[in-house]
Amino acid sequence: MLASKLYSPTLRELPSDAVVMSHKYMLKAGMMRKIANGTYAYLPLAFRSIQKIENIIRTEINKTGAQEILMPIIQPAEIWQATGRWNVYGEEMFKLKDRHGRDYCLAPTHEEMVTTLIQMDTNSYKKLPVSVYQIQNKYRDEKRPRFGLMRSREFIMKDGYTFDADEEGMNKQYELMYDAYTRIFTRCGLKFRPVIADSGAIGGNASHEFEVLADSGEADIVYCKDCDFAANIEAVKPNTLTSDVKNDKEKEIVQTPGQHTIEKVCNYLHLPVKSSVKAVVYKLDDTVVLAMVRGDHEVNEVRLQSIYNAINVDMASDEDLKACGLTAGYISPIGLKTSEHFDIICDASVMEMQDACCGANVKDEHYIHVNPARDFGNVKVDTIRQIDAGDVCPHCGGKIVLTKGIEVGQVFKLGTKYSEKLDATFLDNNGKSRPMFMGCYGIGVTRTVAASIEQNHDENGIIWPVAIAPYEVVIVPANNKSEDVMKAAEGLYNALESSQDEIVFDDRAERAGIKFKDADLIGYPLRVTIGKKWQESGCVEIKLRRTGEVFEVPYENCVEKVEELLNYLRENNL
Amino acid sequence: MLASKLYSPTLRELPSDAVVMSHKYMLKAGMMRKIANGTYAYLPLAFRSIQKIENIIRTEINKTGAQEILMPIIQPAEIWQATGRWNVYGEEMFKLKDRHGRDYCLAPTHEEMVTTLIQMDTNSYKKLPVSVYQIQNKYRDEKRPRFGLMRSREFIMKDGYTFDADEEGMNKQYELMYDAYTRIFTRCGLKFRPVIADSGAIGGNASHEFEVLADSGEADIVYCKDCDFAANIEAVKPNTLTSDVKNDKEKEIVQTPGQHTIEKVCNYLHLPVKSSVKAVVYKLDDTVVLAMVRGDHEVNEVRLQSIYNAINVDMASDEDLKACGLTAGYISPIGLKTSEHFDIICDASVMEMQDACCGANVKDEHYIHVNPARDFGNVKVDTIRQIDAGDVCPHCGGKIVLTKGIEVGQVFKLGTKYSEKLDATFLDNNGKSRPMFMGCYGIGVTRTVAASIEQNHDENGIIWPVAIAPYEVVIVPANNKSEDVMKAAEGLYNALESSQDEIVFDDRAERAGIKFKDADLIGYPLRVTIGKKWQESGCVEIKLRRTGEVFEVPYENCVEKVEELLNYLRENNL
Repeated sequence: MLASKLYSPTLRELPSDAVVMSHKYMLKAGMMRKIANGTYAYLPLAFRSIQKIENIIRTEINKTGAQEILMPIIQPAEIWQATGRWNVYGEEMFKLKDRHGRDYCLAPTHEEMVTTLIQMDTNSYKKLPVSVYQIQNKYRDEKRPRFGLMRSREFIMKDGYTFDADEEGMNKQYELMYDAYTRIFTRCGLKFRPVIADSGAIGGNASHEFEVLADSGEADIVYCKDCDFAANIEAVKPNTLTSDVKNDKEKEIVQTPGQHTIEKVCNYLHLPVKSSVKAVVYKLDDTVVLAMVRGDHEVNEVRLQSIYNAINVDMASDEDLKACGLTAGYISPIGLKTSEHFDIICDASVMEMQDACCGANVKDEHYIHVNPARDFGNVKVDTIRQIDAGDVCPHCGGKIVLTKGIEVGQVFKLGTKYSEKLDATFLDNNGKSRPMFMGCYGIGVTRTVAASIEQNHDENGIIWPVAIAPYEVVIVPANNKSEDVMKAAEGLYNALESSQDEIVFDDRAERAGIKFKDADLIGYPLRVTIGKKWQESGCVEIKLRRTGEVFEVPYENCVEKVEELLNYLRENNL
Repeated sequence: MLASKLYSPTLRELPSDAVVMSHKYMLKAGMMRKIANGTYAYLPLAFRSIQKIENIIRTEINKTGAQEILMPIIQPAEIWQATGRWNVYGEEMFKLKDRHGRDYCLAPTHEEMVTTLIQMDTNSYKKLPVSVYQIQNKYRDEKRPRFGLMRSREFIMKDGYTFDADEEGMNKQYELMYDAYTRIFTRCGLKFRPVIADSGAIGGNASHEFEVLADSGEADIVYCKDCDFAANIEAVKPNTLTSDVKNDKEKEIVQTPGQHTIEKVCNYLHLPVKSSVKAVVYKLDDTVVLAMVRGDHEVNEVRLQSIYNAINVDMASDEDLKACGLTAGYISPIGLKTSEHFDIICDASVMEMQDACCGANVKDEHYIHVNPARDFGNVKVDTIRQIDAGDVCPHCGGKIVLTKGIEVGQVFKLGTKYSEKLDATFLDNNGKSRPMFMGCYGIGVTRTVAASIEQNHDENGIIWPVAIAPYEVVIVPANNKSEDVMKAAEGLYNALESSQDEIVFDDRAERAGIKFKDADLIGYPLRVTIGKKWQESGCVEIKLRRTGEVFEVPYENCVEKVEELLNYLRENNL
């Protein structure tokens, strides 16, 4: 490909409205353009990376025996109503009507559709297992689309589904896919971790997320230094912490004028934060829920949602607080009455405290010497806090580490949740009708592109793993005005390009400095420069983008050296 | 691929709700399933054919210098409003709102989007030409989705767009694409014709359709036996026919009780049909239009639409007729007054008649001896009839032939229609701002699958051209119970499969008859049978699906013979 023809309009400045580096660099390198909020057009460079990821996925998923299909994006409401998810997805689902007024949605995922499809023709255990997948656009009307391809409203996903006669079969498929996912992300050159996940809105019995480790990730993940435990923080039930503080005193009201945050109160009363109780008020569907955790802990909202089996999780409004008799900034469960629409839940570790401080439900007043087990009355108790850096591994008691990840894939054991609701049954070998055991498996293809950049970049631009780089090599003639240089560069281009469509020849009438900058920005794994050195000594320079290493080789050995370096990168997933 | 694993649930009966053969066979062969009206899931066999067509497209379109991109399906209303097509598409466009109430549509085509996209970064003649394309789902909420993939609401399209500095550049791109399209459909093994087309709702200066010749086609096309003229009937302006009938008589009313069709009246009055005038009443947007053609002619609605620059073309309702003083079955332009909302248009050939019969606008009465030029008063005259079998070639006067086609591709010279409306301008080498010259080029990928089947099938099933067959070869062991047969078949499968992923081994525990039926239905180009002959004489049978020819070859020569036959098919686009 000639750089003069390549449609990759690079920008001179980093776009200021982009926050994360993948977003900035994809815009700057001319890989994509924003069309609407959370909606992008992928230009040739991005398209090539996407296609390479898709091909890696196809190769590895086909090895599991799965077959590629393509299901509609636009789907009738009925199948979503049958599983109840027409409402579960709420505003996050794009909905529309056809010319006859019938309801449709743009699929955010395909469990309903694939179950309906496979059910049509699969009625006997003899036809099981079935394993299918597809790669196509998905749609989610995110409340806050952001970070470019990390959280967009239209994105490319690979989604696979398996159907088995029993749990054992399902578990086997799950393992096959887990292994395939591991191979896929390894081949994509990513540093990642499979972690235990909550199954969330998809549902089911077990789930793992594949998290690319990157500081800009939105997922909080935790792993153990001593055993192989790794999980999304949302999926971890931390140990209940006991307290050795003894307290015989009765609770007592103290004045705390203007001290309406945990930090202020504790500071004002000279108490450690962990001796206070933090109140967070949620609206879970129609129920206002007052959640109490220790002052130094955070609420695990996903657990809360699952405990209350709620579809929507929001913060309670001022009106909600008032209606329940709560005073913002000074909230206390003491003396409150729960009702059908108001509940109180306390983290188990709170109930172990003996001398706590908490709000008094009156402006500028707090309680001290509170013993929750004694003073909170009849409240629900469960583990609702997030694990944090002070905790130990819930498996082995070892040292845990908190880090950030970008979720690029997730695998689920669904069990019979969807097959029961959508009548996906089969006759077993005794002629008895039984629901199929399902699994589902997703990879965010466009998000994988972004995650790769989040993990692989420097101040000059992108550093592509060779397997998913838009092109593998750029050839830069440093002096466009020298006919000899251009001829030599072109000769190299023809020699390399003949074997594969992976080389860009920067034939543009630009200064060498601009070409080098663009080469670093776009992130070609190898840059071959024909410059002064070549004119002086017949040597070309081959630069490894990832390490910055430069190899000077005689012109006639260049093709061989390029192949050697590419093979090295390929073999090491770099 | 083992047939026992392949997800292609064949049906025993032809689905009765399908009308055309591609629809019937794709359902019967387990290639697809209907999900909603005009919406299908593509199962593995269909997906493979689709993928092969896409790969042929990619190879040939890349040769033109075009680059593959991917643009959003979900598009903001604003860009469609800017060109006026938000209304032009009307009910045929799926529209929706996001969670913030903003208007979007599901793109039926991408002129607005691509023009907006390219405009963002292309501001100088130095950056032109630009040529991009994509392959993705398109959406049209058809009034009557039908014929399976021939007219569905969600379908896969390849759409390409070029941007040039001048008309000459545009014309060059058009030729490149025209040639690429010719290569694509040739490689797909289709008998097709490029024909002159009307540019319709897309607009522009020139257009060709690529029509696959098939009786079940919805497009009426016409070509000349003597020159290379070929056109969609809608795009042809036939010659004006003169008449040698002389008539001095005044028009006269005759009684025609119950004779409310052309055929009945002419029969009743013993007049040839071509001496009558046919009246058809349309509603073109807000205007009722009475269109008059000779009794043996048909109205060209596309021309009518273009003459009146109308967005919507419908038949007029009974109320419309009444409001304009028209009597259904006996309509006449004589004595009528046109208005802002009612117009009369006469085909030029009607104005050449001298002794015609037409309605009298009174029930059971007709005029005879009508001379339209004398009697019709002040009506609009234009060529509004369709060409028909009685006409001559408008180019050379030669013999023309009418036939049916399935439109699988279309190329357009758009000129500056979109670039002007969407500010896609550039600075020319004099620093002057000018709009870009555009072209657009579409291929219906899923429709090509259907068109291929319409053209290539027999009473037993599909006859795939080898280039787009889901698999190239099926190996059928005729006797599952013989271990020797199974072993021999498996040996052959392993030998063939090792070189490519194009072989199905029918390992199912079914009778040979069922396997043969399925092989014919699915339409593998080659069937290799290991049966009695092999047990008797060591020979396998290789059957060519297209011709029915059977080759008996010794087992040890089978691989070679299969390769030879596949090469023959490939080289001849069969």
